[in-house]
Amino acid sequence: MTDPVLVEVLRGDIVESVHRGTVAIFDADGKAMLEIGDTSQAVFPRSAVKAIQALPLVETGAADAYGFGDKELALACASHNGETAHVELARAMLAKAGLSESALECGAHWPSYQNATTALARAGGSPSALHNNCSGKHAGFICACCHAGIEHHGYVKAGHAYQEMVREAMEGVTGAAHNADNRGTDGCSIPTYAVPLRNIAHGFARMATGVGLARARATAAKRLFSACMAEPFYVAGSERSDTKLMETAPGRIFVKIGAEGVFCAAVPELGLGIALKCDDGAGRAAEVMVAAVLAKLLAKDEALAEKLNTLANPALVNWNGITVGSLRPAAALA
Amino acid sequence: MTDPVLVEVLRGDIVESVHRGTVAIFDADGKAMLEIGDTSQAVFPRSAVKAIQALPLVETGAADAYGFGDKELALACASHNGETAHVELARAMLAKAGLSESALECGAHWPSYQNATTALARAGGSPSALHNNCSGKHAGFICACCHAGIEHHGYVKAGHAYQEMVREAMEGVTGAAHNADNRGTDGCSIPTYAVPLRNIAHGFARMATGVGLARARATAAKRLFSACMAEPFYVAGSERSDTKLMETAPGRIFVKIGAEGVFCAAVPELGLGIALKCDDGAGRAAEVMVAAVLAKLLAKDEALAEKLNTLANPALVNWNGITVGSLRPAAALA
Repeated sequence: MTDPVLVEVLRGDIVESVHRGTVAIFDADGKAMLEIGDTSQAVFPRSAVKAIQALPLVETGAADAYGFGDKELALACASHNGETAHVELARAMLAKAGLSESALECGAHWPSYQNATTALARAGGSPSALHNNCSGKHAGFICACCHAGIEHHGYVKAGHAYQEMVREAMEGVTGAAHNADNRGTDGCSIPTYAVPLRNIAHGFARMATGVGLARARATAAKRLFSACMAEPFYVAGSERSDTKLMETAPGRIFVKIGAEGVFCAAVPELGLGIALKCDDGAGRAAEVMVAAVLAKLLAKDEALAEKLNTLANPALVNWNGITVGSLRPAAALA
Repeated sequence: MTDPVLVEVLRGDIVESVHRGTVAIFDADGKAMLEIGDTSQAVFPRSAVKAIQALPLVETGAADAYGFGDKELALACASHNGETAHVELARAMLAKAGLSESALECGAHWPSYQNATTALARAGGSPSALHNNCSGKHAGFICACCHAGIEHHGYVKAGHAYQEMVREAMEGVTGAAHNADNRGTDGCSIPTYAVPLRNIAHGFARMATGVGLARARATAAKRLFSACMAEPFYVAGSERSDTKLMETAPGRIFVKIGAEGVFCAAVPELGLGIALKCDDGAGRAAEVMVAAVLAKLLAKDEALAEKLNTLANPALVNWNGITVGSLRPAAALA
């Protein structure tokens, strides 16, 4: 099965490039509301499932023990820009457990946001693991280990007690098996598992509604989603689609991007979970896809739908500020 | 017609993403040696045709008048990294015509190469038009205008006397019409025209052999290709695929990447021109495609083919230096 073209890239009026992909929208009972392309295909959700991976942080009581509020929980679910506010909050989270950045096992990279990179270089700095876009997630993992009395060294490795808790949460929420057969290693060194896209969508509907989850898990899920929706800057940062999308409809939509063209989302008021993947891994296409899908689902709120449609049809502007093209949802998505 | 999958992205042993595309390999007589996908499809070649766009610089006598050697001509065909050597050479080219960076109309951006960006920021600098990856091409345009007595202001605009010379060169070499109907605006603000991929491949075979070109044009083409193959650092820079590929077989292969997943190449000893496009615009896939195609064409030289195959199968390494996956040519390309 060939997945359909979902996004077109135009230069002037001519289609220059195209992106194919799959979309799954499910309710919490496992009923498909929309499936485009082959949603039974296994997909590595990468960072798009950080909110599910953060469940043990709340469920163990670590988040309460360390006094984590919305900002800290949002950062634990984030792929952040490495801006000063992100870096300092990750540092503060580790400090609550009496630790420093040396405990992080995610590796260092320059901030994802170019302005943060040039500011850091201008100040004579170098990137640390705190600038890694995953440092908030890792700080959450480490804090939860400390609170639960689990040795944190090696917490990124498959089979570590904490990764087993994360794996159990992922299996429980998505209903898909997570084991050595479908395991890969993520950019930040933790395990990532390829599972059917439709299971991921179903999982996000469960997270949004609590249906099908144990009570403590349902409460934790609601708290994490609420934190991200309340503090979208801490989930991504300046000029980022996650942040812009959640700012568009405060408290009404949850979204999270993942590497290689994945986007997960939920609309609690509709009880729906969304998972999508651009076949070729392009983030620019996944951003258009999720905005277009959300605009459709929330079409009754015309003002909101218009804002979402604007995000689904971004202009391409060149180095002289001239608009030279655009991205748009293709027919199969429009 | 759906173009085939040409490149697979693996995480562990699992295919995470796929890239579709088209490949055209032609000889100078217009005979197809290989066509994959729909090569009649119009493609914006973007920066991949800078060597053709540089023909008037040589043909007008400007390159000789200003004493341009291999480095300057390579930079005129480049999408460079904005490293110090690139920036200073672009500045020196403009100085030969008595001009400075203020004559450039390409717009400014931070260097494409992150190490160059952080070094510039660390030194308290800001990006200028000289750092734009196209500054060498633009310096060449401006120098040619000055030598030919053409007012250089507005040289980026469609219809400007110099862009008409570039358009004539593109039409002559590719045999495809270039007019308002298939025109777009490139990232550096000059016109770019969508033409069938097979015409671009045919054009690169003509450039490599001189067959079908007027004598002066054939000489200019040979000189530009020789310059790029002699000074591949000035065509791209550190850690760049163009530079690595041309360093692999000095003087034997010409390659040039373009935005949105285009790569053009030529193998003079075989009399062949190559043009390819990744449908989704991914440069990483175009890099694999061109290396795989070159390895096939040059298979008789086993040592060279092995090096090219290594470039066609790059590892994906995460922030901790762990190999987490790879890219590889798919069956249709293997």
